[in-house]
Amino acid sequence: MKNLLSINDLSAAEAVEVLDTAKTLSDLSESGIKKFPTLRGRTVVNLFFEDSTRTRISFEAAAKRLSADVINFAAKGSSLSKGETLKDTALTLQAMGADAVIIRHGASGAAHRLANQNWIDAAVINAGDGTHEHPTQALLDAFTIRRHLKNDAGDLSDIRVGIVGDVLHSRVARSNVLLLQKLGAMVVLVAPPTLLPVGVENWGCEISYDLDSVLESLDVVMMLRVQRERMEDLFFPSEREYSRGFGLSYDRMSKLKKTAIIMHPGPMNRGLEITAESADSERSVIVEQVTNGVSVRMAVLYLLIGGATSKDLTSHMEQIK
Amino acid sequence: MKNLLSINDLSAAEAVEVLDTAKTLSDLSESGIKKFPTLRGRTVVNLFFEDSTRTRISFEAAAKRLSADVINFAAKGSSLSKGETLKDTALTLQAMGADAVIIRHGASGAAHRLANQNWIDAAVINAGDGTHEHPTQALLDAFTIRRHLKNDAGDLSDIRVGIVGDVLHSRVARSNVLLLQKLGAMVVLVAPPTLLPVGVENWGCEISYDLDSVLESLDVVMMLRVQRERMEDLFFPSEREYSRGFGLSYDRMSKLKKTAIIMHPGPMNRGLEITAESADSERSVIVEQVTNGVSVRMAVLYLLIGGATSKDLTSHMEQIK
Amino acid sequence: MKNLLSINDLSAAEAVEVLDTAKTLSDLSESGIKKFPTLRGRTVVNLFFEDSTRTRISFEAAAKRLSADVINFAAKGSSLSKGETLKDTALTLQAMGADAVIIRHGASGAAHRLANQNWIDAAVINAGDGTHEHPTQALLDAFTIRRHLKNDAGDLSDIRVGIVGDVLHSRVARSNVLLLQKLGAMVVLVAPPTLLPVGVENWGCEISYDLDSVLESLDVVMMLRVQRERMEDLFFPSEREYSRGFGLSYDRMSKLKKTAIIMHPGPMNRGLEITAESADSERSVIVEQVTNGVSVRMAVLYLLIGGATSKDLTSHMEQIK
Repeated sequence: MKNLLSINDLSAAEAVEVLDTAKTLSDLSESGIKKFPTLRGRTVVNLFFEDSTRTRISFEAAAKRLSADVINFAAKGSSLSKGETLKDTALTLQAMGADAVIIRHGASGAAHRLANQNWIDAAVINAGDGTHEHPTQALLDAFTIRRHLKNDAGDLSDIRVGIVGDVLHSRVARSNVLLLQKLGAMVVLVAPPTLLPVGVENWGCEISYDLDSVLESLDVVMMLRVQRERMEDLFFPSEREYSRGFGLSYDRMSKLKKTAIIMHPGPMNRGLEITAESADSERSVIVEQVTNGVSVRMAVLYLLIGGATSKDLTSHMEQIK
Repeated sequence: MKNLLSINDLSAAEAVEVLDTAKTLSDLSESGIKKFPTLRGRTVVNLFFEDSTRTRISFEAAAKRLSADVINFAAKGSSLSKGETLKDTALTLQAMGADAVIIRHGASGAAHRLANQNWIDAAVINAGDGTHEHPTQALLDAFTIRRHLKNDAGDLSDIRVGIVGDVLHSRVARSNVLLLQKLGAMVVLVAPPTLLPVGVENWGCEISYDLDSVLESLDVVMMLRVQRERMEDLFFPSEREYSRGFGLSYDRMSKLKKTAIIMHPGPMNRGLEITAESADSERSVIVEQVTNGVSVRMAVLYLLIGGATSKDLTSHMEQIK
Repeated sequence: MKNLLSINDLSAAEAVEVLDTAKTLSDLSESGIKKFPTLRGRTVVNLFFEDSTRTRISFEAAAKRLSADVINFAAKGSSLSKGETLKDTALTLQAMGADAVIIRHGASGAAHRLANQNWIDAAVINAGDGTHEHPTQALLDAFTIRRHLKNDAGDLSDIRVGIVGDVLHSRVARSNVLLLQKLGAMVVLVAPPTLLPVGVENWGCEISYDLDSVLESLDVVMMLRVQRERMEDLFFPSEREYSRGFGLSYDRMSKLKKTAIIMHPGPMNRGLEITAESADSERSVIVEQVTNGVSVRMAVLYLLIGGATSKDLTSHMEQIK
């Protein structure tokens, strides 16, 4: 594995290896080891063409815990705004010695372009490209599901996941569908027809327009953020109506299985796609998703540029202890 | 001590402990020890909702000298501008493993809100909230006064401090009044009536509208910045008239006691509240305040998240040497 | 050497020492040593009044590889925008313990002002001031030329360098002329008369208005960026005409000596001053310039604040190995 551009880059076994590595790192963190020397001397660049403080600091925290040097490169006001091409930016970062470039870009396919033009030897990690993919988000979601419903081991077979809301604009949904299916889970997409992409019938998911009829069957209910800022047209009549049809209210939460968990990639629109009661309930693992995000990103960086496998990690970490 | 939100959080003894710890750290720095391993593996987040490069880099330098990882989170262009609540930001930082969150916010009370809602276990340090408080500024001012007038030891009893200028908009003034009184100093507030807050008569300070009549009695003259950017109305007739009435000119400086020192929290409006001659004179300790700011912030971080007291520091540092 | 403000601060011997030090550091990097403890505990401040991500991250990478703490201070939205003077910013950085301040400023002479007013003990490095100088760019260019044409040793005697394009607005040209001549190279400036500064006849360079007549004689062709953003007036009839007269096309590249190299300080306007074919050809060392920039900036930081000479480095590094 050289890059992480799309969930399609990973076999099921590789995806499980990421999750297992994240598990090891998470255990070590919980045992009080906060800093690992693994990536000392490595340089990780956060190349962000879109603002996303949340994702940026998650990667930054992950890289720093592994002792990498982190350079933040917000494309606003950079040479890119002086007309530099992505190619020249890539060549520059490569020449400066970047070992990994984490790219967030508004255009679908930007990460692929950065990685696949022979511009760069550094590992490229897609931190969200347009409405296309956000693979580390899917991995942290899978990690969280596996932790709660599979005792931190193996794949996600027999888990039934509902992904609810604005599937059309969501790279999170896209990456999750790919990964969940790869790991053996069943996915139901629940949305109004206007918020489902063309061709969704080929994604291999069940599709429902009625949240209430689906709720009781789910092991995981994953609420998507309503991407107000991506909506150029009116995709639903009103926020209130959206909320009534597809929001996770207290009543809806009460219909879930006892073991079911509630997820959201954040940032939430409280009161729109999810009520405060649901977001803050005991079934909600939303905050834990953030914690797991750091572990999963550490694992990805470790596997991509640490020059090692999850087995090496275990023996390496044994030596540290 | 879990947080530092207000000077009211500190007993006199605790305040003195901060100053003593800062003294130890300052001595060690001056002896050439520039980097301490104390906070290795700890993560300090600068959560700044207002621009304040000066305060941000002071905290950043302090945290880095203690070997903490620092993550800068400027709220502009972050999820907060996408409608995320302070609560969700807090939960996110907590989940990412922040050990301390340094918050600067335009609204009075924001730091309290962040700390006191059970959102977060991390230590919260108030780096300025609206016109309310800025406790580390008061601590560094007390440190500076103690260094010059009390030989770096004990409290500030019998010291007479004049705080001059825009008290109304100044969180610096508010925190200083609280701390100086706690440490036994006497405070005179000197300002035009329009720049004094309602209820100031209950602060326990002397109040004067006439700088010249007060000057000779002061051990410390602390000039406040005229907060042009906070003034929505016209609080004084003209800058020239303000300067004539309340600016620290050469003539006024000449009237001070020989031992008196001149302070200013910065950034200065040279020529408005203070002339260049006064700012750059030998009595001025304005630049030294900045240096002491780093030591005091190191002390606060050390005491809040280093899991130790100032006595531990001394023995810990002995071992390093 | 205390500061690096202008190439005039360096004797030829000192310039060669910088290049030799950079060579040692570059060799060590290539042998796999990515992190040096040399500047541990030192604080390097990037004080950038103009956006220049490329230069900023080159210095940041250099400082971090030497284990310095780096603080980025973008002047936008800082106290400077609240009316603070350069003097007070300088005093503040000094007081916070900055060991080196790297300054980028839109006004020619800003770096000199920062360094030469007794405001600051920290080493000042000019990272570009107006249209005046950019000395580390010239040093990395000299390093690159020496590597390719002088086998990494000695000076640049007998090398003939053409600097082509917008000399008028280029601090890169100015610093390069000074350094190349100091190191024994011959310089030809090639530009339309409107893009040459007044007094250029005293620079001691050949001057040509005709790129084609000069090409065959050059060992190095250094293309300058057309500084669209600095051009307030119309300096040439059209981009197309500029390109036809002064762009490095495939045809022109073919006329170069077999050993000649193509340079550009970046970011390039592909299709304007240089075609993609030339920029990406085997003769182009443009990407390598970026790599060498990090080595040269490491060398400058090492020599200015590492308290040592290039000989110390060699023995110091022997010990590490």
